[in-house]
Amino acid sequence: MRAGLINTGTELLLGDVQDAHLAFIAREIFPLGLRIEERRTVPDTDAIGRTLAELLPGYEMLFVTGGLGPTSDDITRETVADLLGLELRQHPELLESLRQRLRLRGIKWAAGIARQADVPSGAQVLPNENGSAPGFYLKANINPRISSPHLFVLPGPPRELQPMFRKYVIPILRFLAPSSAIEQRIYKIAGMGESSVEEAIGEKVLAIPGIELGYCARPGEVDLRTIGKPEPIQQAEAIIRSALGFSIFSTADETLEEVVVRLLTKRNQTLATAESCTGGLIAHRVTNVPGASQIFVAGYVCYANRAKIGMLNVDRNLIEKHGAVSEPVARSLAEHVRVCAGSDYALATTGIAGPTGGSAEKPVGTVYVGLASAESETIAKKFFFSTDRETFKQLAAQSALDLLRRKILAPT
Amino acid sequence: MRAGLINTGTELLLGDVQDAHLAFIAREIFPLGLRIEERRTVPDTDAIGRTLAELLPGYEMLFVTGGLGPTSDDITRETVADLLGLELRQHPELLESLRQRLRLRGIKWAAGIARQADVPSGAQVLPNENGSAPGFYLKANINPRISSPHLFVLPGPPRELQPMFRKYVIPILRFLAPSSAIEQRIYKIAGMGESSVEEAIGEKVLAIPGIELGYCARPGEVDLRTIGKPEPIQQAEAIIRSALGFSIFSTADETLEEVVVRLLTKRNQTLATAESCTGGLIAHRVTNVPGASQIFVAGYVCYANRAKIGMLNVDRNLIEKHGAVSEPVARSLAEHVRVCAGSDYALATTGIAGPTGGSAEKPVGTVYVGLASAESETIAKKFFFSTDRETFKQLAAQSALDLLRRKILAPT
Repeated sequence: MRAGLINTGTELLLGDVQDAHLAFIAREIFPLGLRIEERRTVPDTDAIGRTLAELLPGYEMLFVTGGLGPTSDDITRETVADLLGLELRQHPELLESLRQRLRLRGIKWAAGIARQADVPSGAQVLPNENGSAPGFYLKANINPRISSPHLFVLPGPPRELQPMFRKYVIPILRFLAPSSAIEQRIYKIAGMGESSVEEAIGEKVLAIPGIELGYCARPGEVDLRTIGKPEPIQQAEAIIRSALGFSIFSTADETLEEVVVRLLTKRNQTLATAESCTGGLIAHRVTNVPGASQIFVAGYVCYANRAKIGMLNVDRNLIEKHGAVSEPVARSLAEHVRVCAGSDYALATTGIAGPTGGSAEKPVGTVYVGLASAESETIAKKFFFSTDRETFKQLAAQSALDLLRRKILAPT
Repeated sequence: MRAGLINTGTELLLGDVQDAHLAFIAREIFPLGLRIEERRTVPDTDAIGRTLAELLPGYEMLFVTGGLGPTSDDITRETVADLLGLELRQHPELLESLRQRLRLRGIKWAAGIARQADVPSGAQVLPNENGSAPGFYLKANINPRISSPHLFVLPGPPRELQPMFRKYVIPILRFLAPSSAIEQRIYKIAGMGESSVEEAIGEKVLAIPGIELGYCARPGEVDLRTIGKPEPIQQAEAIIRSALGFSIFSTADETLEEVVVRLLTKRNQTLATAESCTGGLIAHRVTNVPGASQIFVAGYVCYANRAKIGMLNVDRNLIEKHGAVSEPVARSLAEHVRVCAGSDYALATTGIAGPTGGSAEKPVGTVYVGLASAESETIAKKFFFSTDRETFKQLAAQSALDLLRRKILAPT
């Protein structure tokens, strides 16, 4: 099936917003044997209509994103209806849910809002559970006088499009797409670089006939992808598992924090954090996971030295002797926060995120992670991440969470 | 001048790599009065030739990225030369610099490498100081028998393309582009929805001749964009400022946390946080800003009730009487953390992020934000964000930071 994608949005062509839809949709539809053959990005003008008119006859499936909102530059809905000769009809239930949404949020009703309840006749509504504008699906040749592909019209904001796609579009695609025996498996790996992963498994896996191998490096994480028929996928699995072992933290598309929350919940154990250089990022990531309140007791962001002393009773002399960024302080922070919070485990970070604050002895990028637990000795580990401030925080938080994950899995 | 962009690369269409070229190029060329009118992304196949053939006649300027490397799927150079009826000629200096580059890095010479020294006759070479494949520029109608635009052919990796673009492409564009007085202004707005912003200013601003208006909604934020010549831009500015006032938090592309850190730094004031439902996100956002250590003292993530009581001495009876998610508890958290940390301001959040934990009286999405300050009464404000857990946290953190921003700017 030939599939195309049209991204609408003047903000994309001005460089104000980075497009995220192509990569997301491509990855979602791949397991169904579907690929995007071409993507076009056009502004919120009559270019939408021209591009649609060009692509409608050539494709069997077309995704269109953006331009479904309430403002005057949102014209995708009207353009599609017009091109396919379909009437727009107000959908009473959608209108009611829009009114309810606004009422709940205490937002005033404005003239343009009702347009979001208009739907081309014959369309299947794709509910938007994270925003106001619904998407819609028009089956191929919905107007028998005009040749058209299966058409999915989706909202622009990724946090609205992505859940809608997974919940409502994928089931339709499963029905439309020819069944395919090609599988994809993703191994999420922490504590190893991309080249080390390749060195460990690359040659052996590529020697299996019919396997496609891909690597994707993210901050503190490598996603290893195998694509192929079930048998080679199984052969590759054996090699990868035996070579990488504990470094694989998930094969179920989980984040590291999701894995940590899952492991602690299962063991009925709890966590507390004392963050200096990560500034609350570990607590933020852990509390992003639904159910985190079962395992996360308390977090301290002890940014200033006086906060380290005042909040957690860290010995002033220890800081004066070794410096705030040091192994003894990382240990002490972890131990004190574990006792204060009464938790099973405690993580602590102290380091220099930069861009300023480094020295010859402790340059920007230095970080110590401490891990205290009820049953064994406190661990402290040094890392060095020479990068921008935000990536530094991500890498330090990732290393801390991975240290905890390995400790839970192999306590001794 | 009509300008278009073609991104080549199968990896883009598989979602393995996020495209960064459109946003980069768009922002680089905008100050020269140039805009990308359309972008197409195509795989490394004959689709490159088809797309080029379609776009060559319609544009006055065309950028093409990717497909200049040494491997068999790199076909952009040959496709361009073929379409424009130009011979490819080996460039002796380029060949020599390729040999030298490989020697320096200890890489063996391979058959395909020399192809990167081939250049269409008449092309101007754009040196690649960060990789092996050079780019090239072909002036409009370089082959007088074939109508073609100014054509810039550029390497795929952003770390090669970006410095090349700034150093070698921009000077050519300055020469080509008619001097232009078109300006862009972006107003970042918090505390108002997209529709309310349009209702407040849309009609009046669009009545100004020669103004282009755009809206981009993000979680807890609307970016309003005006494009036009200096005079209409100024007229629009007056209308927008008077209608939106304090709701505009930046016109300098800052995040809300950057604005807050800037305002506090300027006033030599400090902040502490007590976060329940935002789980450390406010502290994380504030500490993302370089220099945050000057203003951020300490953050408490008091997730469990016993943490609220134990960490911050919140009265157990207050929690029992009103519930942890309540206005009195938000106030009390803010006041206690301000005293504990000895800061000028303190923000507190308490709410129900979901997906579970709601009740009829306090449904998932309810949040109270507390703001304590040294000089005036503590404020508490209720919000309701019915959305997914992560967006809820973003919206709650955004509301808290905006409450603080408004308080700093208008203390009484």
